[in-house]
Amino acid sequence: MRDIVTVDTGHERYDILVGPGLLADPAAWAGLPKAALAVVVSNTTVAPLYAQQVVQQLGTRYARVTQVTLPDGEAHKDWATMNLIFDHLLAEGADRKTVLFALGGGVVGDITGFAAACFMRGVPFVQLPTTLLAQVDSSVGGKTAVNHPLGKNMIGAFYQPRRVLCDLDTLATLPPREFSAGLAEVIKYGPIADMAFLDWIEAHLDALVAREPAALAHAVRRSCEIKAQVVGADEKEAGLRAILNFGHTFGHAIEAGLGFGEWLHGEAVGCGMVLAAALSARLGGVDEAFVRRLTALVRRAGLPVQPPALGAERWLSLMRMDKKSEAGEIRFVLLDAPGKASMRPAPDALVTDVLRAHGG
Amino acid sequence: MRDIVTVDTGHERYDILVGPGLLADPAAWAGLPKAALAVVVSNTTVAPLYAQQVVQQLGTRYARVTQVTLPDGEAHKDWATMNLIFDHLLAEGADRKTVLFALGGGVVGDITGFAAACFMRGVPFVQLPTTLLAQVDSSVGGKTAVNHPLGKNMIGAFYQPRRVLCDLDTLATLPPREFSAGLAEVIKYGPIADMAFLDWIEAHLDALVAREPAALAHAVRRSCEIKAQVVGADEKEAGLRAILNFGHTFGHAIEAGLGFGEWLHGEAVGCGMVLAAALSARLGGVDEAFVRRLTALVRRAGLPVQPPALGAERWLSLMRMDKKSEAGEIRFVLLDAPGKASMRPAPDALVTDVLRAHGG
Repeated sequence: MRDIVTVDTGHERYDILVGPGLLADPAAWAGLPKAALAVVVSNTTVAPLYAQQVVQQLGTRYARVTQVTLPDGEAHKDWATMNLIFDHLLAEGADRKTVLFALGGGVVGDITGFAAACFMRGVPFVQLPTTLLAQVDSSVGGKTAVNHPLGKNMIGAFYQPRRVLCDLDTLATLPPREFSAGLAEVIKYGPIADMAFLDWIEAHLDALVAREPAALAHAVRRSCEIKAQVVGADEKEAGLRAILNFGHTFGHAIEAGLGFGEWLHGEAVGCGMVLAAALSARLGGVDEAFVRRLTALVRRAGLPVQPPALGAERWLSLMRMDKKSEAGEIRFVLLDAPGKASMRPAPDALVTDVLRAHGG
Repeated sequence: MRDIVTVDTGHERYDILVGPGLLADPAAWAGLPKAALAVVVSNTTVAPLYAQQVVQQLGTRYARVTQVTLPDGEAHKDWATMNLIFDHLLAEGADRKTVLFALGGGVVGDITGFAAACFMRGVPFVQLPTTLLAQVDSSVGGKTAVNHPLGKNMIGAFYQPRRVLCDLDTLATLPPREFSAGLAEVIKYGPIADMAFLDWIEAHLDALVAREPAALAHAVRRSCEIKAQVVGADEKEAGLRAILNFGHTFGHAIEAGLGFGEWLHGEAVGCGMVLAAALSARLGGVDEAFVRRLTALVRRAGLPVQPPALGAERWLSLMRMDKKSEAGEIRFVLLDAPGKASMRPAPDALVTDVLRAHGG
């Protein structure tokens, strides 16, 4: 049993496959780009769990299959780590047809995708996300990047994968903290696009946390559907796509302010959504009851709802570095109504007020 | 008096302006993308000569204009140098609308273009080429890159500039060795696409070397026209565009084999064209008289025609790293006839033979 969600950006088109057992299912691997060499990029945590079955699948399709194992964690999402991939590709005689397979979470996917975008000015790559966050968000839509010491995801490219295989079985090995982090991005789709999905998440959160297969399948598929629709309409974030960053302006500031890797990305986004909802309420887009509802759901998902006390000045200066900022003006994804979002600036005083009210 | 050549890749379109005095001509700067910040990227050699007049032009159009000065030379065309641009952009609070201006030769243009492609996943940039090589080749067509210790231009992107200003006056300050290097890329367009242009170059080489304005204007314009036509038909080098790499497979091996910066890129290409023509003759595409004619012209342009003695094994292994290689098979741009080229493999034995005959 498997769902297929298609992403169509107008000039590129690819499938997201969602289901159990995909990594071991030959049908899921059929029709990928041909090449003499396939390279599996993973990290020290995920490679021991799944690299062998991936290599086995690829072995029947590519003359040569090699592996690169990166250090694990957001703290390593930088140029030096990406260069390990380039060193490997050149040492192995990779060419413009070589296919990269990103096996792991969001960090592996983002680095591998950016490496694929840059190596020889572009080689094909496939996403094999093994975390909930990567399956519902980062592996879909072609945003790739590495961090710069002064800002998250500052250096990157829009570069679409050829396919995304979301094998739900890989979620079984995910530590609870990482699973919760992924739930933040699932919850996100409700307030910005689909209140019926938010209702469903509230009703099925216990089943999700218990990792019941049917609940996981629905959450991943519906998340991918919403993301595919948004990305299809606005691949390069000229406008609409920015709504996918709900909670991310505050979230990125938390990540950068505490040092990348201190809070997980999803944890920062969970808390960031609470702050963004509160800011939206001050501007009249939603009411306080909605903010309380979202806060309760984020808390139930095992995510922090109270921001770190960075101090107002530091918060503002970190958020001014956000990629959505323009001419020094911070722009937030705010809720215009439940299920509807847009990107807008907000007065510094109001932002500071919200932060102060939450202990930030 | 100014010529305009338009590049149209189907989804992007921009003008190359060719003429004297463009850097100081307000009309040449009209209609560029609006932003709060413009950043001029140059190097230690070019900045003292032209940065001031560029900053002056930009000062009337952008609220803030800042400068980054890179170390000069191919040896610095790497990630570390590109990171100087990122550091500057983040320190100055650049955003997604910030416009980069690449003022200098091919190295400055390639690094700045790649930085523009990656910064926040893409900001606009403008090419202000000040060398003959950059004006007739590297600033046009959107190939951007940095070198990797194991290969030239291995890490990069296809990313088009918003405009190219070829101010012919800047060629006056070019050292003779660099001017000759640029002539290699001018000569290149003859054998691959336009034998009438080759005739013209032969007839006007003395005028070109004397840097007579009318001769320079014609050489730059016609080179840009041919390049724009090829790039418009095949932006991402699916096929045709590869012919622009005539002489480059041998040339890149010379550059990498001796260490980047030892020979200038154009010098390596000049010598590489002699070898590629000789290889084409062995395969019947042109006759020996043509090879002698091209060799004489390359020599008259002040370029080396004898390759360094790297040894056959090293030559082949360096060329196997070329981006045009596939599954370990080296592919050359060969002449099918005078004025007509295509990319093809050639037997190792024949390549070795040609190298041996030329003392390589």
